Amino acid sequence: MKTPVPDYLKHVLTSCRDNDKGALADYIPELAAVDPDKFALALSTVDGTIYSTGDDEVEFTMQSMSKPFAYALALQKVGLTKVMEKVGVEPSGEAFNQISLEKDSNIPKNPMINSGAITTHSLIPYKRTVSRAEQLRRFLSGLAGRELSFDTEVYTSELKTAFRNRSLGYMLRTVGVLEEDPEAIVNGYIKQCSIKVTVKDLAMITAVLANGGIQPQTGKKLLDRSVVRQVLSVMLTCGMYDAAGDWLTTVGIPAKSGVAGGIIGVLPGQVGIAVFSPRIDEHGHSARGVEIFERMSREMGLHLMEGTPSAQTILQSRYLTGKRDHVVVYELRGVLQFTESEMLLRILQDEPEGKKRIVLDLTNLTLIHNVGARMLFEGVARLKKDGHPVVVVDSEGILSEAQMKGNKRVVVKEKLDKYLEKFQ
Amino acid sequence: MKTPVPDYLKHVLTSCRDNDKGALADYIPELAAVDPDKFALALSTVDGTIYSTGDDEVEFTMQSMSKPFAYALALQKVGLTKVMEKVGVEPSGEAFNQISLEKDSNIPKNPMINSGAITTHSLIPYKRTVSRAEQLRRFLSGLAGRELSFDTEVYTSELKTAFRNRSLGYMLRTVGVLEEDPEAIVNGYIKQCSIKVTVKDLAMITAVLANGGIQPQTGKKLLDRSVVRQVLSVMLTCGMYDAAGDWLTTVGIPAKSGVAGGIIGVLPGQVGIAVFSPRIDEHGHSARGVEIFERMSREMGLHLMEGTPSAQTILQSRYLTGKRDHVVVYELRGVLQFTESEMLLRILQDEPEGKKRIVLDLTNLTLIHNVGARMLFEGVARLKKDGHPVVVVDSEGILSEAQMKGNKRVVVKEKLDKYLEKFQ
Amino acid sequence: MKTPVPDYLKHVLTSCRDNDKGALADYIPELAAVDPDKFALALSTVDGTIYSTGDDEVEFTMQSMSKPFAYALALQKVGLTKVMEKVGVEPSGEAFNQISLEKDSNIPKNPMINSGAITTHSLIPYKRTVSRAEQLRRFLSGLAGRELSFDTEVYTSELKTAFRNRSLGYMLRTVGVLEEDPEAIVNGYIKQCSIKVTVKDLAMITAVLANGGIQPQTGKKLLDRSVVRQVLSVMLTCGMYDAAGDWLTTVGIPAKSGVAGGIIGVLPGQVGIAVFSPRIDEHGHSARGVEIFERMSREMGLHLMEGTPSAQTILQSRYLTGKRDHVVVYELRGVLQFTESEMLLRILQDEPEGKKRIVLDLTNLTLIHNVGARMLFEGVARLKKDGHPVVVVDSEGILSEAQMKGNKRVVVKEKLDKYLEKFQ
Amino acid sequence: MKTPVPDYLKHVLTSCRDNDKGALADYIPELAAVDPDKFALALSTVDGTIYSTGDDEVEFTMQSMSKPFAYALALQKVGLTKVMEKVGVEPSGEAFNQISLEKDSNIPKNPMINSGAITTHSLIPYKRTVSRAEQLRRFLSGLAGRELSFDTEVYTSELKTAFRNRSLGYMLRTVGVLEEDPEAIVNGYIKQCSIKVTVKDLAMITAVLANGGIQPQTGKKLLDRSVVRQVLSVMLTCGMYDAAGDWLTTVGIPAKSGVAGGIIGVLPGQVGIAVFSPRIDEHGHSARGVEIFERMSREMGLHLMEGTPSAQTILQSRYLTGKRDHVVVYELRGVLQFTESEMLLRILQDEPEGKKRIVLDLTNLTLIHNVGARMLFEGVARLKKDGHPVVVVDSEGILSEAQMKGNKRVVVKEKLDKYLEKFQ
Repeated sequence: MKTPVPDYLKHVLTSCRDNDKGALADYIPELAAVDPDKFALALSTVDGTIYSTGDDEVEFTMQSMSKPFAYALALQKVGLTKVMEKVGVEPSGEAFNQISLEKDSNIPKNPMINSGAITTHSLIPYKRTVSRAEQLRRFLSGLAGRELSFDTEVYTSELKTAFRNRSLGYMLRTVGVLEEDPEAIVNGYIKQCSIKVTVKDLAMITAVLANGGIQPQTGKKLLDRSVVRQVLSVMLTCGMYDAAGDWLTTVGIPAKSGVAGGIIGVLPGQVGIAVFSPRIDEHGHSARGVEIFERMSREMGLHLMEGTPSAQTILQSRYLTGKRDHVVVYELRGVLQFTESEMLLRILQDEPEGKKRIVLDLTNLTLIHNVGARMLFEGVARLKKDGHPVVVVDSEGILSEAQMKGNKRVVVKEKLDKYLEKFQ
Repeated sequence: MKTPVPDYLKHVLTSCRDNDKGALADYIPELAAVDPDKFALALSTVDGTIYSTGDDEVEFTMQSMSKPFAYALALQKVGLTKVMEKVGVEPSGEAFNQISLEKDSNIPKNPMINSGAITTHSLIPYKRTVSRAEQLRRFLSGLAGRELSFDTEVYTSELKTAFRNRSLGYMLRTVGVLEEDPEAIVNGYIKQCSIKVTVKDLAMITAVLANGGIQPQTGKKLLDRSVVRQVLSVMLTCGMYDAAGDWLTTVGIPAKSGVAGGIIGVLPGQVGIAVFSPRIDEHGHSARGVEIFERMSREMGLHLMEGTPSAQTILQSRYLTGKRDHVVVYELRGVLQFTESEMLLRILQDEPEGKKRIVLDLTNLTLIHNVGARMLFEGVARLKKDGHPVVVVDSEGILSEAQMKGNKRVVVKEKLDKYLEKFQ
Repeated sequence: MKTPVPDYLKHVLTSCRDNDKGALADYIPELAAVDPDKFALALSTVDGTIYSTGDDEVEFTMQSMSKPFAYALALQKVGLTKVMEKVGVEPSGEAFNQISLEKDSNIPKNPMINSGAITTHSLIPYKRTVSRAEQLRRFLSGLAGRELSFDTEVYTSELKTAFRNRSLGYMLRTVGVLEEDPEAIVNGYIKQCSIKVTVKDLAMITAVLANGGIQPQTGKKLLDRSVVRQVLSVMLTCGMYDAAGDWLTTVGIPAKSGVAGGIIGVLPGQVGIAVFSPRIDEHGHSARGVEIFERMSREMGLHLMEGTPSAQTILQSRYLTGKRDHVVVYELRGVLQFTESEMLLRILQDEPEGKKRIVLDLTNLTLIHNVGARMLFEGVARLKKDGHPVVVVDSEGILSEAQMKGNKRVVVKEKLDKYLEKFQ
Repeated sequence: MKTPVPDYLKHVLTSCRDNDKGALADYIPELAAVDPDKFALALSTVDGTIYSTGDDEVEFTMQSMSKPFAYALALQKVGLTKVMEKVGVEPSGEAFNQISLEKDSNIPKNPMINSGAITTHSLIPYKRTVSRAEQLRRFLSGLAGRELSFDTEVYTSELKTAFRNRSLGYMLRTVGVLEEDPEAIVNGYIKQCSIKVTVKDLAMITAVLANGGIQPQTGKKLLDRSVVRQVLSVMLTCGMYDAAGDWLTTVGIPAKSGVAGGIIGVLPGQVGIAVFSPRIDEHGHSARGVEIFERMSREMGLHLMEGTPSAQTILQSRYLTGKRDHVVVYELRGVLQFTESEMLLRILQDEPEGKKRIVLDLTNLTLIHNVGARMLFEGVARLKKDGHPVVVVDSEGILSEAQMKGNKRVVVKEKLDKYLEKFQ
């Protein structure tokens, strides 16, 4: 059989094609010249599978969709504290092109409005030989898994009419948020907006966010989990509408749109989504794109508050083995966060005191959080106190050095089979 | 062994006890007379396990923590559309006691500020014999799993100084949001705030929200999933601070506090949390309570953006059985939402065309969403097209009538063992 | 001949009668029941002459036109400092029924919006036997020169639907601006609004303000000049529109309207104006009333910035008299403020040094300000230094004791003729 | 004798010299380099007399004091309607350097904030050979009665740091309020601010406004009365503080300050005032300057609401002459506006019917408003109807052609004496 997921995406695309609301962004000729009927949708899973349909090879400029990634890059490079000194995290309640400085601190309210995005661009560390826009292009190319390029015509054209961004730049310079020549920063920001992508690129880019910062195809860690958490949090409250509550209740997916017609969304641990349709509504969002997000949230339960109870699946199986069944094996599976650890420990409570050897097998875990490791080893300690010899089998090396600290002696790196052989 | 979770909670409690910031709410003598050092913490899982520590038997009034539940009750009783006509979902960006009406519609911005909460109270359907506050008390008793009661002294006392709520009530009457005598509504709202609970009650109450509306101890469905989603969404953006972004980035748990010192939080699919410590900070939140939430988010990874990838665990096992191995069994496990279904269908792709009988066993699923059922039966259809006879084993009756519609013939209600016997 | 002023007023009335914009205030039946075509206009001069036309005997309730007079009464009774602690003087930029508290001080922005007017009512000193509304009625009766009465039906009716004012009252109580039971204060304020007047009453009432606080018919000083200055200043910026600049530039007359259809205006030193036409526009102002004010400002030059240069008329005549013309008489006329005094002193500069007796005759002055008196006596001192004997003739007693202080010896109370006889 | 007015000014200056609050504006070196103790005060009357004291020969840049005059020039050149399409008249309630666009129209709230002033500069009609700043310099030179010049060093220096004005310029360009290159307009505006003046210049400049647009020394009409009225109205509500009410109640003089330390004020029909002291307070106003204005208002009764009743002085004298006293002469004096005309007509009412010749002598009038002329001739018509022959003696030609229209036959241009000779 073939998975019906591509058909489902195609179906969604088709049923939204009737929506001809909105109009092409027209403030520069290059944006107004595209084919308004272009339409594409892509979806990625946390393991890097990508489904796409429609005009999924058409390139378009990222525009404001570049903002969360410039924010991510700045966070990764200079850290949360320094970024928070210059840009806040609150929804502005105002249109995207307002200045929206915070009252006391005089810094832009968030990195998704233009004033905040210009400031964020300036936070990418200055390098003499590699411009900030180029640094971001390289970073996004890494996320996308292919070399992206700038749309020079769009860039050149936007430069000419960038009155508002120039205004914001000078205002930020006045209040001291920008410390360099605002003209250069604004130009760099406009260049950042001109990076070209397809929906497939975007799906892969968002898959990295959905996957906690790890590029699922290469396995490379490109962003810290804390950076991903920060970026998604800000996308949720500031990414789409001036009014955060509307998007959160009706769609519930952290998202960001660009005026060229793209929208991206991320459900952490689950999926990345990317849409492209150039007709934009009065809020500057792709009209069809918004409809697609609404449908996918409603029809496919893709909503942040549709929490997945994963604790019950942590125990793959428990069985006795070895001579006189004196070895008890617990095979774990999935992710070990707080909730799963709590469940595991609750199960271990039923293990009667005694001398039986307890083997906790991590081979099928895909991720172990620090809190999971801590709780795991705390369980190990208590089992030992009950008289059991205990071993943790980590043949895949999922535990980091830091997580094992002080407990290395109980960790075995062999395959489970191999290890169990000794006790037959 | 004993699970270390209670010790962990105790440890958190102890380490936050030094925090003596904040002061007792003093606007009525009854609130100012409590012991400021009372301190309790409770945590519940989606299956109804409750851990608690400290003064976990001490009762205190819910105050504003009653707001999300009055909202839930109103949504459940009169539906989202009618509620949205009277109360919005946007963060107010203003202090909790401002009127904060939306510009065009003239309705309160959200149900967590007082004007919205008074309005929400009025949306609980009027009954001649059972007051709205009493209806809410009964509803909360159902969530908590024990009979709760009102604190009459606190109620009587608050009535006397309720100038601001009375002001809000008259203003809401003027703009037509309230359609009855505002005095009666305001009094009812104040009574609602005087419902007494312990942190253990709150942990159980929030467990229902974490568990998608199902009381985990009784298995009763008390709220629709869509209502839970709405309530949690609003708690996230409007529950704690005027500024949504701060709480979302640093804590990331939908939460609500009450001026008597309680704070509740819910991570959907994972945990409910309840804290009690009566000293409140300048925002009206329990000072220690906020610290505990920050620690639990930071140290235990309890953050909405720490998404749990659960797709990989959907397949418990696949094996051949029956004569000449002509039966292929897929045992599923956990929750079947979009992401898990996508994974399952991807796995089924590898099943070669042929005549083998495919058995999809749902026995170990804890929940199947509508999208999951739809995708499951789509997979069934495609496998059939490939030539396979296909059967879905649902011995626990997890599929609803609606979900089975049109596919009843492929569903078998027997135990898997029993069913497989036929093919040996 | 007969003065054409009444004809002019009649003409204005007639030409505005076509304006049938607006509608009767309908929030209480009593206001909606009046004849919408009633129409009246009255004008008063600072000497108490009153012109009126149309339905100038019809009584209607003052409503918000009572606000500046409650403010005046409070200022007169408790002083500017105490009043400023409770009510500001800034335009609110918001609709009249908003709370509009000032940011830092939490007091109502001005006494012309309802929250400020309710507060102002509370500032009229409490008397056990005479309610505040009754105190104001008596005060207004004094200004009007006849006994005014309350409209009990309007009062009773407004009480029933005063949700908004009650809301404001409770809010003011919460923030501590009101220190008594808000219900009683709000009721008193509503009673104050029900005082009945005709346009002729209003013309006389405003004549007192135009005349610096002195009732022109009785000559009684009812308000301090500083109180009048404060009241008119606040009427100018806060009296008519949320936006002060529009009214100031296009009409330029400090004014206040009432929802029953009245508008009053005052040009200090010149005229009082009163209009009555019950159809009100979307701002709550009499639609015809506004048109009349615009016309009178435009056509009759009645605008605050049309300053009247009065300095040149200060000297009525200068002549020599007495034996050998050794007496020089300066007859003054009009008002002696700074500008007139400056002119007088400039004229006196031309008086050559010498022994001639200088007589400054104040008989025809209508008013002498303190600064005028100071500058007059400074001139006297300098003339003396030049060698002149100098005498100030004040047969009408226009100089106050305070103004004469230290200069009594040069002041003569005789009639000029009588005084001059001695030197013939 | 010598008038004590200069001494009085000197006294005010001396007693405010202790005030060392505030600090030099320091955003450009040129402003920070001036002597902070420089201090000067000047006062002018409507007839062009100028008093001054202190450093009254020191030149300084006008800065924001140029704003009302650019506004006046724009009004005079393109008319009120066109100006109002681009700049409003409402107080902004915000700091002077905010954008403060009006909600619906998207135009700057008033011409006294920077965004409005930049826009106003652009409204001075473009000329290829004379820059707008140069046009304003010429216009101000005409008002001042001497050739003013630019401070090139201040101009050049301000250009370098004009981030905020540049930001405003680009924003105005974005919203379409500016239609040309914002850089050029902003540079022109900055040049306008660098025009150099002394307090004596400013006193003369403001005297023109006080005198209704006529340069008192040359008698040239430089501005229409309606323009003056508009400019003064806007200065009153928008000139000094964000909060209009404070300045109006405590000072009551339309005013404007500049960051170089100047403040100007105008009481229409009375005086112009100019102060210079470079230390500025947190609002950007000269600290000593504000104190001087407060004192002059308080001590000298210079307050807009201290209206001068001028009606009573309109009749200089009435006497019978000619054979058998059959000629009645009314000599008028001062200004003939509405209030004076009303008084005159009231006096004429006492003239009994009959054949006596009535002579109305305008020789000593300084100004006759249109409404005054209309009312005068209406009186003439009524006297005629009573049987009187009537003549208006206008030997000085104070009546304009338009004012005489239809009544030329009753106007006599001879001297009164000459005319009366015929009837002896």
